[in-house]
Amino acid sequence: MDKNNFSSPIDLKDIKVTDEFWHREQELVRTEVIPYQWDALNDRVKDAAPSYCMHNFKVAGRMMKEKQQKGSSYVAPTYTFRGFEALPEDPAHPDDDKFFGFVFQDTDFSKWIEAVAYSLTQHPDADLEKTADEAIDIVCAAQLDNGYLDTYYIINGMDKAFTNLKDHHELYCLGHLTEGAVAYYQATGKDKLLKAACRFADYVADYFGPEEGKCKGYPGHEIAEMALVRLYQVTGEEKYLQLSRFFLEQRGTLPKYFELEDARRAEAEGRTFKTDTDPMSYCYYQAHKKVQAQDEAVGHSVRAVYLYSGMADVAKLTQDEEMLAACERLWNSMVREKLYVTGGIGGTHIGESFSFPFDLPNDTAYSETCAAIGLAFFARRMLEIKADSKYADVMEQALYNTVLSGMALDGKSFFYVNPLEVLPEACHKDHRKFHVKAVRQKWFGCACCPPNIARIVSSIASYAYTEKEDTLWTHLYMGSVLTKKVGEKELHIKLDTKMPWDGKVKVELHADDEVACTLAFRIPGWCNKNTYQVVCSADVEQKIQDGYVYLTGSWKDGDSIDLDFPMEVHMLSSDTRVREDIGKVAFTRGPITFCMEEADNGKNLHLCMVDKSRIKTGDKWNVSVEMTEELGHSMAVLKVPGLRQEESSVAQESLYVEYKPIKETQTELTFIPYYAWNNRGEGEMSVWVRI
Amino acid sequence: MDKNNFSSPIDLKDIKVTDEFWHREQELVRTEVIPYQWDALNDRVKDAAPSYCMHNFKVAGRMMKEKQQKGSSYVAPTYTFRGFEALPEDPAHPDDDKFFGFVFQDTDFSKWIEAVAYSLTQHPDADLEKTADEAIDIVCAAQLDNGYLDTYYIINGMDKAFTNLKDHHELYCLGHLTEGAVAYYQATGKDKLLKAACRFADYVADYFGPEEGKCKGYPGHEIAEMALVRLYQVTGEEKYLQLSRFFLEQRGTLPKYFELEDARRAEAEGRTFKTDTDPMSYCYYQAHKKVQAQDEAVGHSVRAVYLYSGMADVAKLTQDEEMLAACERLWNSMVREKLYVTGGIGGTHIGESFSFPFDLPNDTAYSETCAAIGLAFFARRMLEIKADSKYADVMEQALYNTVLSGMALDGKSFFYVNPLEVLPEACHKDHRKFHVKAVRQKWFGCACCPPNIARIVSSIASYAYTEKEDTLWTHLYMGSVLTKKVGEKELHIKLDTKMPWDGKVKVELHADDEVACTLAFRIPGWCNKNTYQVVCSADVEQKIQDGYVYLTGSWKDGDSIDLDFPMEVHMLSSDTRVREDIGKVAFTRGPITFCMEEADNGKNLHLCMVDKSRIKTGDKWNVSVEMTEELGHSMAVLKVPGLRQEESSVAQESLYVEYKPIKETQTELTFIPYYAWNNRGEGEMSVWVRI
Repeated sequence: MDKNNFSSPIDLKDIKVTDEFWHREQELVRTEVIPYQWDALNDRVKDAAPSYCMHNFKVAGRMMKEKQQKGSSYVAPTYTFRGFEALPEDPAHPDDDKFFGFVFQDTDFSKWIEAVAYSLTQHPDADLEKTADEAIDIVCAAQLDNGYLDTYYIINGMDKAFTNLKDHHELYCLGHLTEGAVAYYQATGKDKLLKAACRFADYVADYFGPEEGKCKGYPGHEIAEMALVRLYQVTGEEKYLQLSRFFLEQRGTLPKYFELEDARRAEAEGRTFKTDTDPMSYCYYQAHKKVQAQDEAVGHSVRAVYLYSGMADVAKLTQDEEMLAACERLWNSMVREKLYVTGGIGGTHIGESFSFPFDLPNDTAYSETCAAIGLAFFARRMLEIKADSKYADVMEQALYNTVLSGMALDGKSFFYVNPLEVLPEACHKDHRKFHVKAVRQKWFGCACCPPNIARIVSSIASYAYTEKEDTLWTHLYMGSVLTKKVGEKELHIKLDTKMPWDGKVKVELHADDEVACTLAFRIPGWCNKNTYQVVCSADVEQKIQDGYVYLTGSWKDGDSIDLDFPMEVHMLSSDTRVREDIGKVAFTRGPITFCMEEADNGKNLHLCMVDKSRIKTGDKWNVSVEMTEELGHSMAVLKVPGLRQEESSVAQESLYVEYKPIKETQTELTFIPYYAWNNRGEGEMSVWVRI
Repeated sequence: MDKNNFSSPIDLKDIKVTDEFWHREQELVRTEVIPYQWDALNDRVKDAAPSYCMHNFKVAGRMMKEKQQKGSSYVAPTYTFRGFEALPEDPAHPDDDKFFGFVFQDTDFSKWIEAVAYSLTQHPDADLEKTADEAIDIVCAAQLDNGYLDTYYIINGMDKAFTNLKDHHELYCLGHLTEGAVAYYQATGKDKLLKAACRFADYVADYFGPEEGKCKGYPGHEIAEMALVRLYQVTGEEKYLQLSRFFLEQRGTLPKYFELEDARRAEAEGRTFKTDTDPMSYCYYQAHKKVQAQDEAVGHSVRAVYLYSGMADVAKLTQDEEMLAACERLWNSMVREKLYVTGGIGGTHIGESFSFPFDLPNDTAYSETCAAIGLAFFARRMLEIKADSKYADVMEQALYNTVLSGMALDGKSFFYVNPLEVLPEACHKDHRKFHVKAVRQKWFGCACCPPNIARIVSSIASYAYTEKEDTLWTHLYMGSVLTKKVGEKELHIKLDTKMPWDGKVKVELHADDEVACTLAFRIPGWCNKNTYQVVCSADVEQKIQDGYVYLTGSWKDGDSIDLDFPMEVHMLSSDTRVREDIGKVAFTRGPITFCMEEADNGKNLHLCMVDKSRIKTGDKWNVSVEMTEELGHSMAVLKVPGLRQEESSVAQESLYVEYKPIKETQTELTFIPYYAWNNRGEGEMSVWVRI
């Protein structure tokens, strides 16, 4: 690994996203999702499962206050092999002074504050900041004197804190809190929440670690790994990086920690402990092997990509070649064997997990929105280590398709699960597809996806650009105005594009003085490597490496660069090992994957086929691209020459009849962007179509 | 319904199955399954889950004996709305004096004795009969004085008897016990078990019924309905028929009995009772509607066809037109919308149930062996009401394919689940397919399928023929020698055929005197209605009705009938609403459905296709039929002109690549009978193939 080419995401305060496509998404998040989310956190949304998140913080805060008034304080649970000191009995509380919701309900706040933070960098909003500050006050009031901050245990009794790392998400709560706190600090300069996160992290760093007498556990749901790296980066406090590395390196060690803690709990509860002999169980948590030895992406897919992101962070910061090699193997396992053409991951709803290689069912897919988001996290981190367009291609695919599919075009409803084929009747009647919703939902009791969309959309610019001292990499093209600082000098960059609908990109440079640096632009995987063009007004050195054009020289005011990545329609087939896609094709154009909907193509999409005899014109696919509007959003649709198989007659006397050559009628199939599906009511959808 | 045309199955003592195909199956059952089953009942099979069945009867028997010695006796639980009188405390028993296994474990015996009974009619065996008599002694010793006989409650305490009809299978145990008892009585003339069954049925008839104060419940798992009809037929005791009708007519009544009993149990156990709001729950038990109002086959598919069989029985015996109309609607729902081309039913493993109409996935199919057996039960009963070949066609399809697929060619291992497409890797790695086994299993803890195969195979002749006073119907063609009694006279019939491999049937008649009667022969649905031939040496009246040829006249010694049903290969496509089969075909010939196996066609069966350009020769399919031997069993295989799609290169850099016309190589595809799949080790299998 070449430390000299490491990069970091740009500071969101140095950029404004002006892009028509992404600005619209960010405005949806700002005007719809963030306020809605805040109402949800406060249980004010009708017809939605209450979050209880802020309720829990308030209850915990009141308990803290009572104790402080009485002069008592929480006793820190001290780690011992067997258990924890029990707290003195809490004073009786009114009935509603209880914890409600999932054990990780605190993270609803953490994700919200993170999205708020990013949004404030793009759109300052004093009222929102005030609301956020007040929320932070409520959250911080719940923190124990010793730094511990997870309302589930604070309210229910600290005696069981850290006794169920496998399932109880305390370190996940630490991770999200830290992500939110760092983001809010970076956006506003306010450090109250950051300090709270540090105190919680300090507490955890005292409790866990390689030193004798410390707990050898690690998170059941990863995220703390990458969050602690961010905390290290913002505070410079080495112990957070060490703690992250410790958590990573504990996974897969023997004896298995989750088994130890389960045995302890069993003893405490008088249960018989049974060793879990299912080899899949530890895969679910990516705790089946040492991380450096992992080579297949397995288990819960959100956990997996959060882990891999943390691994990439630590590999980079500690120049751990072995860790990086594992990241690369896991990357390859995902993108070569387990990635949907929509950039989604997670082939099975059972354990919300990866399935075995090439098992990518379309109709029962899980392809969780959060997993696609996590895939983008991982890709961005791999790009920071090495700018290779293969990472950016997949990141782009995930962001433009599965991530955005997670949110309705009006920002008011959400998908967890992003199938590639939907028959609504099956979603309603077939238990095997109950996880696939035929329409987006308002909010979820387990609200991971909507706030995750909010935080990634608000911070999208940090996926578009990374930088090092003298180089700025453009990974994703979106209209933006940003400033690249090179030493004392500033290069102002204005990028214009109509992506994802057109491959032309115009870059204008402004500077008071000449600025010597490198501007690197990704050559997208979807464009023809022979026909793209880079025209630069300045006389600079041009080099192509790993899918990026590097322009190095001295830039002056008024310089411009014109990039043109021809955006043609691709008709893709899958590796023949993907059984579900055999005999079928999918359409993409630029970063967008397309799908058919019932609204355009009628019912029974399985009877539609691409007309092989008409699909080709010379060297190109005979597919026309038309721009259209949907809910005030302009998008491209594809018109594909198709056939429609005649339905068997209802009068047909038997379910099975002698084969007759199929009667087909010519038709034109309409494909819309996958992310925009299901904005016109319930109906069939399919990404793959027979040919 | 025309009472004059009702028929009944022939007496198994009047027939010998001489057929090469079925005699082999019966011998497997006699020499392999029945002895193995007996060992299993007695927990003597290594590497198989113990049954505990005979253990439980012995424990209950010892308890009975102790009580009798002490002069005490079980107190009959008297039905009241709220609960039951508790028994006095049982004396302490040694640790192994407990009930083990499923609540319905008694039925392992009942199914075994039923198979034994049928087998004894075909192959008298004094040793086996002695073993059976001893087993009956053990079982009868466990019966309470009041007639109750379910070891689960006898051993665990009778206070909870009949408090959980929904899930605890007591009436299912009654049903199977009755089926076994009637069969053993009919086979051997011995009535000890029959009397025990009568006493249990009497007890149940006192306990349940429309009269005030009696329990209004009904079986959670149907079978008692049809069993009680058999008991009525063999004893002439009207109350058994009435009880059967009562059970049928209680289903779907309000308030829902299962909810009432659940509420009662909740109260007794101090639980909060929650109304089950899932509309699917009652469908599972076919208790969602009055049976006369049911029109879609739903829920647990074994339960469903057992219920429908009972409905058909009662419809026939009480000439209930409304009940019959429901049977016909349910029949149509199954065969028109929910039947696999293998004669299997049950599209989903969730609840081992029917899925919604036309949802017939091949790879996740449940298609339980027992459900196909139950379908044959139902079909035979519909045939008894009206000889229409549509019923016999489906019965034949179920018997020759899914029922026989349930047992290995050597009779030593069994399938519960009969998928139409198998990728072994998925069975091992994908939780969604864990119910699909890639190889047959030795025995099951829940041993329903193997003994069910044993009982239907041993009694196959009663599906082949039904009769009324002056008419004998041949529904299935199998080599056999039987005697039709007409008044005082006897017509001896010898039928020879090479079914299922050849459509020719030769019937020879022998009689001392001329016998006037009708011989009716089914014209199979799979033969060409224009080319089949019936040649009769006697001058008799010939009539065709509902798919049967009726030959009526006076038969004399030496008369003969030659039937020839041309057996051509069919290449079938499914109704276009079956999404899983779109673009695919399946092959059948005669009653046999075929499939491809990896052993013949290599891995990656999904890459195989029928070669459209070579599949037709004139008016026929260009498929050759070859006879082959497997494990000493001769069978036809099909050779089909095929194509094999080239695999994508492992070096291919991406999971998704630009579509290129598929490279195919010509090949010959081999299809073997579906029932014979998986007799050559683990491998891929597929019934449907792309065209």
